[in-house]
Amino acid sequence: MPMDQRQRIPVAVLGATGTVGQRFIEMLAGHPWFELVAITGSERRAGQRYGDAVTWRLPSAPPLAALALPLLAPDAELPAQIVFSALPTDVATDIEPLLAARGHFVFSNASSYRMTPDVPLLIPEVNPDHVGLLERQRATRGWRGALITNPNCSTIQLALALKPLVDAFGVTKMQVTTLQAISGAGYPGVASYDILDNVIPYIGQEEEKIERETRKLLGTLTEAGVAPAPMTISAQCTRVAVREGHMACVSVELGQEATSADLIAAWRSFRAEPQERALPTAPQPAIVVREEADRPQPLHDRDAGNGMAVVVGRVRPCAILGHKFIVLGHNTIRGAAGASLLNAELLVARGVIG
Amino acid sequence: MPMDQRQRIPVAVLGATGTVGQRFIEMLAGHPWFELVAITGSERRAGQRYGDAVTWRLPSAPPLAALALPLLAPDAELPAQIVFSALPTDVATDIEPLLAARGHFVFSNASSYRMTPDVPLLIPEVNPDHVGLLERQRATRGWRGALITNPNCSTIQLALALKPLVDAFGVTKMQVTTLQAISGAGYPGVASYDILDNVIPYIGQEEEKIERETRKLLGTLTEAGVAPAPMTISAQCTRVAVREGHMACVSVELGQEATSADLIAAWRSFRAEPQERALPTAPQPAIVVREEADRPQPLHDRDAGNGMAVVVGRVRPCAILGHKFIVLGHNTIRGAAGASLLNAELLVARGVIG
Amino acid sequence: MPMDQRQRIPVAVLGATGTVGQRFIEMLAGHPWFELVAITGSERRAGQRYGDAVTWRLPSAPPLAALALPLLAPDAELPAQIVFSALPTDVATDIEPLLAARGHFVFSNASSYRMTPDVPLLIPEVNPDHVGLLERQRATRGWRGALITNPNCSTIQLALALKPLVDAFGVTKMQVTTLQAISGAGYPGVASYDILDNVIPYIGQEEEKIERETRKLLGTLTEAGVAPAPMTISAQCTRVAVREGHMACVSVELGQEATSADLIAAWRSFRAEPQERALPTAPQPAIVVREEADRPQPLHDRDAGNGMAVVVGRVRPCAILGHKFIVLGHNTIRGAAGASLLNAELLVARGVIG
Amino acid sequence: MPMDQRQRIPVAVLGATGTVGQRFIEMLAGHPWFELVAITGSERRAGQRYGDAVTWRLPSAPPLAALALPLLAPDAELPAQIVFSALPTDVATDIEPLLAARGHFVFSNASSYRMTPDVPLLIPEVNPDHVGLLERQRATRGWRGALITNPNCSTIQLALALKPLVDAFGVTKMQVTTLQAISGAGYPGVASYDILDNVIPYIGQEEEKIERETRKLLGTLTEAGVAPAPMTISAQCTRVAVREGHMACVSVELGQEATSADLIAAWRSFRAEPQERALPTAPQPAIVVREEADRPQPLHDRDAGNGMAVVVGRVRPCAILGHKFIVLGHNTIRGAAGASLLNAELLVARGVIG
Repeated sequence: MPMDQRQRIPVAVLGATGTVGQRFIEMLAGHPWFELVAITGSERRAGQRYGDAVTWRLPSAPPLAALALPLLAPDAELPAQIVFSALPTDVATDIEPLLAARGHFVFSNASSYRMTPDVPLLIPEVNPDHVGLLERQRATRGWRGALITNPNCSTIQLALALKPLVDAFGVTKMQVTTLQAISGAGYPGVASYDILDNVIPYIGQEEEKIERETRKLLGTLTEAGVAPAPMTISAQCTRVAVREGHMACVSVELGQEATSADLIAAWRSFRAEPQERALPTAPQPAIVVREEADRPQPLHDRDAGNGMAVVVGRVRPCAILGHKFIVLGHNTIRGAAGASLLNAELLVARGVIG
Repeated sequence: MPMDQRQRIPVAVLGATGTVGQRFIEMLAGHPWFELVAITGSERRAGQRYGDAVTWRLPSAPPLAALALPLLAPDAELPAQIVFSALPTDVATDIEPLLAARGHFVFSNASSYRMTPDVPLLIPEVNPDHVGLLERQRATRGWRGALITNPNCSTIQLALALKPLVDAFGVTKMQVTTLQAISGAGYPGVASYDILDNVIPYIGQEEEKIERETRKLLGTLTEAGVAPAPMTISAQCTRVAVREGHMACVSVELGQEATSADLIAAWRSFRAEPQERALPTAPQPAIVVREEADRPQPLHDRDAGNGMAVVVGRVRPCAILGHKFIVLGHNTIRGAAGASLLNAELLVARGVIG
Repeated sequence: MPMDQRQRIPVAVLGATGTVGQRFIEMLAGHPWFELVAITGSERRAGQRYGDAVTWRLPSAPPLAALALPLLAPDAELPAQIVFSALPTDVATDIEPLLAARGHFVFSNASSYRMTPDVPLLIPEVNPDHVGLLERQRATRGWRGALITNPNCSTIQLALALKPLVDAFGVTKMQVTTLQAISGAGYPGVASYDILDNVIPYIGQEEEKIERETRKLLGTLTEAGVAPAPMTISAQCTRVAVREGHMACVSVELGQEATSADLIAAWRSFRAEPQERALPTAPQPAIVVREEADRPQPLHDRDAGNGMAVVVGRVRPCAILGHKFIVLGHNTIRGAAGASLLNAELLVARGVIG
Repeated sequence: MPMDQRQRIPVAVLGATGTVGQRFIEMLAGHPWFELVAITGSERRAGQRYGDAVTWRLPSAPPLAALALPLLAPDAELPAQIVFSALPTDVATDIEPLLAARGHFVFSNASSYRMTPDVPLLIPEVNPDHVGLLERQRATRGWRGALITNPNCSTIQLALALKPLVDAFGVTKMQVTTLQAISGAGYPGVASYDILDNVIPYIGQEEEKIERETRKLLGTLTEAGVAPAPMTISAQCTRVAVREGHMACVSVELGQEATSADLIAAWRSFRAEPQERALPTAPQPAIVVREEADRPQPLHDRDAGNGMAVVVGRVRPCAILGHKFIVLGHNTIRGAAGASLLNAELLVARGVIG
């Protein structure tokens, strides 16, 4: 167990200058298990100090130690078994398998391999057993390392909020409308001229990702791979003028009768492996239920559990599907960098790595 | 028909200093049939010039003629048969019936009497036959005038978008999430400290209004009054940082099979009484269908048809209810002042007034 | 005089797909003197219909006639003597002189030649006599056409507001802090992640432009060219979360004693050549003075005079320089497309063109 | 010295439910010297638990201990010598002297007594010697306690930024334009309909406060009271759509020649009594100088020094007054609650209290 170790485990971040890369840098500063030892950026900036290469865009100040690290080229040899990838999709598609082949455990935010049958799409609170795919992955591909992905930034919060309901009641249908933060589009992302005094009711491929990733996450690990959850999902995704925090207005049909109070009880009693193991980045609790009429709100709830908790509220009957509620999560922490970190912590705690 | 008249019909506006009152003043400037001759405000400001009493909050400049009108007390004698009410609910509850009794045709934005059985909740494109309730209303109550209401600012656009679908296919279920503009809360309304970099997933009574008003609007006029449409509705309402324009993300279940193209065709061919009669405030067409992937948007589509058209887009299949799409309308024009105006124009054109 | 003409003058717009290009297209729709007959775009889009090539970003709907025009390559032959340039600076630098040499009158928004000694930097209300530079320009360069520039989007409003003060009292010093709209940065321009809940106190080269362009605009035409006005200027420029409308907080030192009332009187009585000639795009009046404590504001005043007027308010003593006040103008209308249009109207009205 | 104490000093907060009151509660949670033991609110809410009475509006979660405190009436007996006042001006005017007479040390954010000759207007880094006024105050008024005020939220940052310049070079003139956050107006404060896509170039009495408070803060303590600094100040104040963080664009005339580098050196070497004494709330350093072209920015710099530091940037020559630069500070921390806290810490550290 890392808790007893005197030495932290070296880790690297790929695509460290982008906004998700910056979140990794921020979250790794002071991490009790991991020590950031290497970062990569674009070919053309390789060799620069991180502090010179990055335009820091997070509100917090950048960690001093990271600023001194040299930026390595995307395909550089990395002195770390654990690698966090904040690479853009096209670059990730090429590089991540190479690194896994070379022996790295790659924890990826990219969408390239999320739906690949032998690649776990992992949320430690939701489907930790899907780690079981790694054996197959490594055997088939002959990799010394492995590739583990985390879901899209809006899916992750939905799946986490659904998990206790699936366990307690079953979930047969979910209708969801999201109101997503601008940070979800990366940087420069959404032009201010497009979003100030406006809403954009479209995010390319986002609805499809929610519909398919959620079913894989809540699916069953079988001999043949992951059998998607038999749940019908319909999503509508919008972009709103919020910096951080994706909101989802959800209606669900459950597999059995339940009251709003039953749902709340299921969320409140939810405690999963990351909480049991007290993983460093695990929120305690994973799901916060607010009872005020007007919560959760991005501004007030995105930082719950240091941005790692999912906040649920306005639980009430839905005349069509039975139940409706609001879900909110921090899209660049729980929905991106923090998701990968927690995945890595799970594999370390289980002894898969190290 | 007023078109032939040499003289415009005198009208009054109640509650003229609020934001909906200001929209009435703006829309009446240059109206071909109506001439604004009287305005009322709070007791304490009675006697002031409108120009001195009002803090004009619309982006456009206020009409000069209106600025010179004296503000009358709420219960003053009004030299106009047609009266537009932008009164707050509590004041409207008391005053509107009094005015109707005195012989005025009161066109009200207030929610007080929308669900009252003998009061028409009217959208000229949707349920013009509900004007038939007025006979009963006047007979029962002994009023020389009448009281006509228009729906809540988010309901009106939904009902208008649903109407061609109801006619062509029947609609059995509607699931809707709204993203509503700050102007819907009046003035001062939403504090900037509450909404900047935020979303508020709650608007008091709004979901209930959508659920019940839509069913009355699309209901059937019978001997016994309006039988609500047998449609199941579930709404979630949120407030976003947009000045004007309510957006709704809608899923519907139809009474019969249809393709997205069928829905679009139904909207595109929709032409109702206000369009047939070419009422001055009637948009041509009433419903605009946009085919771009990312429309409608509040900033770009709220002013369609001078703010009186409803804009529909992103029509596509819904895995749960069959069809989903986005609806957008201008909440203080189509959703408030313009709604009352069009109601009055309908009654004038039909000869009920005048 | 075009007023008598039965036929409108053909004009072209260079760089028609950008946001300033779109403003030109919008303002030329229904222009009484000018008819848009040709537009250019980037090499790679040449040949496309404008409606296919452009992503229309203005809140208003695009004019239908323009949508059908084919996009020409930047260096195409243009069937119009008058050419409006919304080209980016680097492209403008190469192409504008070529077009002037070929016989076109090029009205440019680009900064490339604003400070060139024989190129007029022109505001019709401020320095119409600088048109006199054209003779020299055409003689020296052997051009059959000519090149006329308009100032930077923040300078133009300042110079216009200063002009009546210069005439009446002389102005020796101006200290100014601007709060500029995001549209001033073009598209995509300012990232929403940079400006939402933020102010950026820096706009590259903007302070320098204000300091030098204002002095040329208010300078004296001599045999040797324009002698800059002997005025000391110090500017600080910031970017704020406003869509349109640049605000400036100004302090001035005058050449002689004056009261706030004297300044207001100077602005109110100001009437220049565009107003005298009733040029189609000329605002009447050019300068609006508001007396409320909290005006002008971008939202309420940017559209004064159809976006062509400059609005001044909060005139009061300054303990350091003598007088202070607020100036506001629409940066993409008065500060860009409208500025070029008015320049062209002036030259047509004076008979320099046509 | 409290550092050695085993027990924390009990303190009370007046007006604890407002936004500045909430900042006090937030900053006192975990304070090493002070323990919050009592809070007051409006008469009508007296008796309620704080958790029931308050609508918490800060993004952070409210401290649990505070939520359990009962809300006392404004004039209740308070079991604490140190009292922090976040009262509205009118209430403060009556109650603060009463409490001082009863023996409390009242640290006030209200403007009521800031300019009163025997009341210190105190910033520990700027004019700690003005504490000397207290002897006179207590003698004249016969108070067992005392009244100490802190400046307006925009003044405090300006005075702090000016202090090292005054010490090193003298400052004879300051021209300043502020861009102030909406939180400065309290709650509900600025209506979203007034500020979204807008700037308001007016804040009642703010310019006057900057002009007179700055001169008292930088003034000289004499036998006869505080002689205001002989500095000419001219301010223009605007409100922008920013949650927290007042920005000021400043030009200054110094008493002697200096380069930008000299100013930066003066700020960088600045170290005052709170820093020397390492007061718990004192930022280290008090003034941060940023050298990037586009800093400070509210979003990135308001939290410097936990919101207690002032950030300066863009130091460069001003053609009129000699030097110009940007100043930024957190208006509800350094500019309000944190200011009072630091004042109390100073008096405790000096032994005036305790």
